[in-house]
Amino acid sequence: MKMEQKQDNTSLMLLSATGLALLTILTVWKSKQCKYRLLNETGGAMFYGMLMGLTVKLLSFYRGQHEDNMDAVCICRGLNSTLHVLTVNFTSPSPRHVGKVRQGCPPLSTPLMDTFDPEVLFNLFLPPIIFHGAYTLNQNRLIKNLGSVLTFAFLGTLISCFTIGSCMYGFTRLMVLSGRAADGDFLLTDCLLFGAIVSATDPVAVLGLLSELHMDLDLHSLLFGESVLNDAVAIVLTHAITTYSQTGEGHTFDPPAFLLSVGYFLAVFAGSLLLGFLFTIMTALLTKFTRLHENPLLETSVFFLLSWSCFLTAKASGLSGIVAVLFCGLSQARYTIHNLSSEGRTRTKQLFEVFNFLGEIFIFSFMGYALLTFPCHVFRALFITGALLSIFISRACNIYPLSFLLNLGRTTKIPRSFQHFMMFAGFRGAVAFSLAMRDTSTEARRTILTTTLLLVGFTTWVLGTVADPMLQHLHIRVGVDADGDETPEDLSFEAATGRPDTTPGLWHRLDYKILTPLLTHCGPPLSDTLPRCCGLFARLLSSRRVQEDEEQVCEVGDSTFDLEKTEERSGSPGGDSGSAHQEDLLEGDLGLGTDPPALTREP
Amino acid sequence: MKMEQKQDNTSLMLLSATGLALLTILTVWKSKQCKYRLLNETGGAMFYGMLMGLTVKLLSFYRGQHEDNMDAVCICRGLNSTLHVLTVNFTSPSPRHVGKVRQGCPPLSTPLMDTFDPEVLFNLFLPPIIFHGAYTLNQNRLIKNLGSVLTFAFLGTLISCFTIGSCMYGFTRLMVLSGRAADGDFLLTDCLLFGAIVSATDPVAVLGLLSELHMDLDLHSLLFGESVLNDAVAIVLTHAITTYSQTGEGHTFDPPAFLLSVGYFLAVFAGSLLLGFLFTIMTALLTKFTRLHENPLLETSVFFLLSWSCFLTAKASGLSGIVAVLFCGLSQARYTIHNLSSEGRTRTKQLFEVFNFLGEIFIFSFMGYALLTFPCHVFRALFITGALLSIFISRACNIYPLSFLLNLGRTTKIPRSFQHFMMFAGFRGAVAFSLAMRDTSTEARRTILTTTLLLVGFTTWVLGTVADPMLQHLHIRVGVDADGDETPEDLSFEAATGRPDTTPGLWHRLDYKILTPLLTHCGPPLSDTLPRCCGLFARLLSSRRVQEDEEQVCEVGDSTFDLEKTEERSGSPGGDSGSAHQEDLLEGDLGLGTDPPALTREP
Repeated sequence: MKMEQKQDNTSLMLLSATGLALLTILTVWKSKQCKYRLLNETGGAMFYGMLMGLTVKLLSFYRGQHEDNMDAVCICRGLNSTLHVLTVNFTSPSPRHVGKVRQGCPPLSTPLMDTFDPEVLFNLFLPPIIFHGAYTLNQNRLIKNLGSVLTFAFLGTLISCFTIGSCMYGFTRLMVLSGRAADGDFLLTDCLLFGAIVSATDPVAVLGLLSELHMDLDLHSLLFGESVLNDAVAIVLTHAITTYSQTGEGHTFDPPAFLLSVGYFLAVFAGSLLLGFLFTIMTALLTKFTRLHENPLLETSVFFLLSWSCFLTAKASGLSGIVAVLFCGLSQARYTIHNLSSEGRTRTKQLFEVFNFLGEIFIFSFMGYALLTFPCHVFRALFITGALLSIFISRACNIYPLSFLLNLGRTTKIPRSFQHFMMFAGFRGAVAFSLAMRDTSTEARRTILTTTLLLVGFTTWVLGTVADPMLQHLHIRVGVDADGDETPEDLSFEAATGRPDTTPGLWHRLDYKILTPLLTHCGPPLSDTLPRCCGLFARLLSSRRVQEDEEQVCEVGDSTFDLEKTEERSGSPGGDSGSAHQEDLLEGDLGLGTDPPALTREP
Repeated sequence: MKMEQKQDNTSLMLLSATGLALLTILTVWKSKQCKYRLLNETGGAMFYGMLMGLTVKLLSFYRGQHEDNMDAVCICRGLNSTLHVLTVNFTSPSPRHVGKVRQGCPPLSTPLMDTFDPEVLFNLFLPPIIFHGAYTLNQNRLIKNLGSVLTFAFLGTLISCFTIGSCMYGFTRLMVLSGRAADGDFLLTDCLLFGAIVSATDPVAVLGLLSELHMDLDLHSLLFGESVLNDAVAIVLTHAITTYSQTGEGHTFDPPAFLLSVGYFLAVFAGSLLLGFLFTIMTALLTKFTRLHENPLLETSVFFLLSWSCFLTAKASGLSGIVAVLFCGLSQARYTIHNLSSEGRTRTKQLFEVFNFLGEIFIFSFMGYALLTFPCHVFRALFITGALLSIFISRACNIYPLSFLLNLGRTTKIPRSFQHFMMFAGFRGAVAFSLAMRDTSTEARRTILTTTLLLVGFTTWVLGTVADPMLQHLHIRVGVDADGDETPEDLSFEAATGRPDTTPGLWHRLDYKILTPLLTHCGPPLSDTLPRCCGLFARLLSSRRVQEDEEQVCEVGDSTFDLEKTEERSGSPGGDSGSAHQEDLLEGDLGLGTDPPALTREP
């Protein structure tokens, strides 16, 4: 009987999820049909999630009045939760939380969530979303803006984290002074932790907006690159601060603990990058040296499973799954895609597209649902006000100074309008939520969860709704087709790599001489590019297909991937279309941006 | 800390699943490359699942020796399981299990499964598998063989259930006589329950084999139709027997309880059919009257979510999800598909194909895993031997007499070779497992679970492996392309419906006059086919696209769905290609088969 009850619960839960998704899709689509572009999928999903949460809340409230006399069940629950608290006590290495632990409650428990683990949701849908973003990203633009993206993602997130942390520390002091909180309720590390959690802009929300508006490609690369990488930074930072708060005292600065955190941060980041690339190498070699491309279904399945495994392996080994899958997606789009059959390419893209679309909706619905049904919310007006203010302050401290510094080095400046929009487009979302949800054992942590959810709601609805008018107001061009970005200017990097003697850096040479011929059927044969001592190795790994027929293979026509087309052209060395811009690259722009901004090209 | 531990477990679990799937895909694909066609995906998946289970078993065995001293954890587990037992006692309406309940153990608990609910697996992957099977089924053949399919599915499963039940009752008496079981261990209802659980052939396994071998289309329809419908019959039968055993005494025949079971059976079946059709109507009207087809991504998502919701709604409301999704798939392929855009059609098919492929592998891996890691297996040699014998006996009692009876009515006989193969192709799989898994509270039920798993393994490996040689031995043609099945003979039904005056039955007239014009843009306008009193209704629901341009709309070219092509031809009334066979239909074959069998056509 119990099993069947549970089954029905599972079905009901999945049914609500699909129902919410359907409602969201149809509402948003209908509202767009009526030229009312303000509502987007993420906002709609969160709204319906909240409605659902409200319904469940009301239902369980009424049912709760009837169930008061069912002693057996209540005793069982009581026992369970006591045991839970004991276990928390037992395994927590830090003794200072003991005083609070009595108020501890099971993480998220409402009728529908008893059978459901939100982590499964993130494990299932985050990887395809990030992968899809990376896989379909315009790589030329990303490479051009790589320096800026890295600066915003790393330095920017650090600035943001510490700005929010110190703002919030000020606000918590204010709370203590005004008697609304006890002295030990919010430590500095709690404030910094909150800073780390909410300093990351969310790729899911940002991608939702970007794919909606088709804005300028440079701005797209900057925003998406930043949002994906700073998530990774925030995740690692959160972990580092947690580690620090457990080893340090929480009040004073502790150099060894700090160094440990920094070391941990770097190790995790490098490890995740490496892991992502490792999975690309596996997939690329597998698709290159087998005849898997004769069966598109198998090809797609293997590609999908390997890319997903990348995320899971990273998580299981304590690395950052998001960084790993991001880099995996980027490198799969650069190398593996050439080994897939034409049908396999379309299929993988469409499969990830559906997952991305549905995943976005499910995740935001769930956040809306959790906002209303999480049983231990702690609403602190002052904390929430402080958080709202500090995310704007921190974003301003991040974007404007860094843009100024970057513009000193960039030949193509980041225009003012872009800066304003970036300052504004600081959506928070799924990653912040999942970070905040991990630990709700103390009241400070529960305050953080509540505030984070409110911030997510605020940025999704308010900022998401005014994004379109804002873009128009700032005269940033929208409706750009990513596939149409094929003006000769965009070929600069690839065309430059087409002439091996003049390639500007180590990475470019590695890419052109070793990685491309090793992992794909394109590029020069390995036996030409590797030194003579590696002759056997080169012959072993050289593409048989290249040896058989050098012309035919790279003529794979699929217009959906612009990268590929540029890659194909780069396959013919000395493409004259790019020579005009080659000098720009040779000038050494530090990868900070070489292309005139779209704004000036289309006034 | 606990949350992160759980997270890592979730990742590890999903990672093992993807790893198993990858291993299976690559091994099976490689083995097929080497012309070793004996190994199929389901068998491979189950094998790797067992390997995985063995590893986990060994690991937890070694770890168990170290963990003996962790008292806190053990106490906690002990408490939990005691509570579990108490709850079972409390809710079970029948008092006769109390003596056994102390041996009760939590359903499935191993390190990896703590965070994982197998029901989620079935909820996620069963619907796409069944839906895909129904969606891509050759409908003409199914309609032609409908009478036979229904006979095998309903009458055959009943025969099978009671044959197995009585055989097993004999064997359990033998066990009691030989002193290997106590008198009250196995009741007649337990034996009948086992019969109901293992009498259904599994669509997942059968589809795996069918899609592999591309066998004769009539045989395909018979086997697939039977396997899907008898699953539904078995599910409902299991529930009915459980209901009966709870109201009746278990030993003697109780007419009211029996009638209740029969009524329940019929109600569930009819309800599920209706529900499946209801979801088709929703999808068809939604895709017909909106411009959703302009956005293939939205179209695919809505189609996918609605079809999946059908399964979930059925389960949540206590109906049979499998019957609902089967009928939904069949009717979606008949109506809704005409409203989709060409890209939407390809996408939905490919999406379900991937889900079907991966789902099959995941489900069978899990069964292999559960076979080795379920903690409370009860191996009874005599019971297992009896089960192995009785599935063959019951299958023989089912196929041969029913084929003989059906051949009396069929113009196209079911040849001997088909009967032998059908007798042999009695694979058991996921549905039997999920039915057996629902209740493991008594020792009889645990014996049933163990035996069912062993039967699944046996039929998958032994029968699955010799299927190919068997087909060759029986001279049944393989390698038939379902899409190529477009000889004019196949149009008989559609061509016949093309002449409204001579349509043979109520269903055909309903389909041609009302459903097709109501749900799609094809067929005659509703205002012509409906009586005059429904004029307003007809105008409201008439396809605007049909009114605008009657010719253009139905000219949608997608070669993957043969149904559609035949439907298009039927759209032009009085197709002369089918007139030759119209007489056959008018002769009244009771839907038992009108077409000469493939064997005689291609000797």
